[in-house]
Amino acid sequence: MHAIAIHGGAGDLPRQMRSRAREALYHDGLACALDCGYEVLERGGNSVDAVTAAVGVLEDNPLFNAARGAALTREGAVELDAAVMDGRDQRAGAVAAVRHVKSPIELARRIMEKSHHVLLVGAGAEEFALEEGLALVPNTYFRTPERWEELDALHSGRAAPELEHSPQGTVGAVARDAAGNLAAATSTGGVVNKRTGRVGDSPIIGAGTYARNGVCAVSATGHGEYFMRIVAAHHLCAGVEYRGLALQEAMRETLARLSELGGRGGLIAVDGAGRIAMDFTTRGMFRGARDSAGLRQIAL
Amino acid sequence: MHAIAIHGGAGDLPRQMRSRAREALYHDGLACALDCGYEVLERGGNSVDAVTAAVGVLEDNPLFNAARGAALTREGAVELDAAVMDGRDQRAGAVAAVRHVKSPIELARRIMEKSHHVLLVGAGAEEFALEEGLALVPNTYFRTPERWEELDALHSGRAAPELEHSPQGTVGAVARDAAGNLAAATSTGGVVNKRTGRVGDSPIIGAGTYARNGVCAVSATGHGEYFMRIVAAHHLCAGVEYRGLALQEAMRETLARLSELGGRGGLIAVDGAGRIAMDFTTRGMFRGARDSAGLRQIAL
Repeated sequence: MHAIAIHGGAGDLPRQMRSRAREALYHDGLACALDCGYEVLERGGNSVDAVTAAVGVLEDNPLFNAARGAALTREGAVELDAAVMDGRDQRAGAVAAVRHVKSPIELARRIMEKSHHVLLVGAGAEEFALEEGLALVPNTYFRTPERWEELDALHSGRAAPELEHSPQGTVGAVARDAAGNLAAATSTGGVVNKRTGRVGDSPIIGAGTYARNGVCAVSATGHGEYFMRIVAAHHLCAGVEYRGLALQEAMRETLARLSELGGRGGLIAVDGAGRIAMDFTTRGMFRGARDSAGLRQIAL
Repeated sequence: MHAIAIHGGAGDLPRQMRSRAREALYHDGLACALDCGYEVLERGGNSVDAVTAAVGVLEDNPLFNAARGAALTREGAVELDAAVMDGRDQRAGAVAAVRHVKSPIELARRIMEKSHHVLLVGAGAEEFALEEGLALVPNTYFRTPERWEELDALHSGRAAPELEHSPQGTVGAVARDAAGNLAAATSTGGVVNKRTGRVGDSPIIGAGTYARNGVCAVSATGHGEYFMRIVAAHHLCAGVEYRGLALQEAMRETLARLSELGGRGGLIAVDGAGRIAMDFTTRGMFRGARDSAGLRQIAL
């Protein structure tokens, strides 16, 4: 049994952007990432390869809030965060507040595999990216006209900065490979109009990203600060590991705890048996799931 | 019942630094911070006030690896991380990779209380510090001759970068006030010879710092990357909350899980009843504890 689930952010398309053609674009973007990650598993690749491949596809797609197409800071720049975790030995790599690394998830993986560290931020992270020969691009590479418009609308008071009104979240993937290894990966531009230097839950191991073999792998999307305060991904894992909750049940309970504080968002997870759970307390969540038992589902 | 515990890092004094006079300096530094935090509780102050006061005293003391006297990056600079968490509503504030903020724990507290964010890093965090009117100082303010010597010895191969050989850890405090509110705070310069931009467990909510009323408040010290990978502080809390473990037991189990991965360090915690636990797998841990039942203990 191998399985993968992905998300492209919690929330919904703004009313004015909702059209059949536009929804088809999002659907295709998710399908492309899902199938790309699934192919890796199908060919016998491991779960870390699968989740980084799927997240990489979503990073390159300007429709989603990660790398190209990321939400803008209040100064109109892009600052990117990402993390990956290998459930086998619980190694992890994460990166935050980088401005020029074309694929933050690739950098997170290099940090996991080639450095003695878990988290590198800012210019120091980019120094490491250069040492590793990763592609750096100008900050403008990430910035799309849609995101300019979104920020401009916020600054001129034409729209409220509501999570519901666009797929702000993040992108992420969780997978179980045929050998039973779990992995999780998350990448994001963060919340629109954020302060320079603001880091959300995505690159925080335990908050937005977590994986432990035999238990589950988790990736989160939504209002990051709330996920950080309840250490959401690890909380979900602890529910499965120590409270004997089923994956879906532990996910519900984690979202309920988030709601108690006033936070909303979504979670995807896969457990040691390859069972997938996807749930959210926002109006929608861009998501997809596929496994070797024949499941293939994509939903907005 | 009110209670406070502090740590000044895991590890031990290097052999050549071990003298009665030197040990007395560390002892006095810990006593000063412990009593300062305890005074806050004694006067009816809350646990957040107490832990930030205690950590602030250790930050200013050049003997400890936080703010003044912090360990140096491989380029010889100081980069500081800190976090504070209020167990009452699980609000949290954290800061990482700042170079000029005189008291990182004070900035973490401002982030918790005055921003919508949990974690700010680098220049963006310093921008917020300036907006809040906090004191900024040149990077050289933090740098002591002892830390220069330590880095130089490493670079010239005169000493191995072993955790055991100096109090590298961090500084931290946990407290329960008379109203039963729990809080935790941690501040650090990180590991000596670290990469620019490396962030350890201290400012990561759930890894190096965590507090939840009725359960426990935790601050960690040691090899940060391992604490991040097991989400140590939250893991300890989950042990108390969901597995019915006593505080000391949950702490032992957390350190055991750390050892499984090859990591070492120490933890301090206080539970909802004001019981204190302090434990470590390093050769020593600079620590102190005091409560309203008459306990007052300081140990290296």
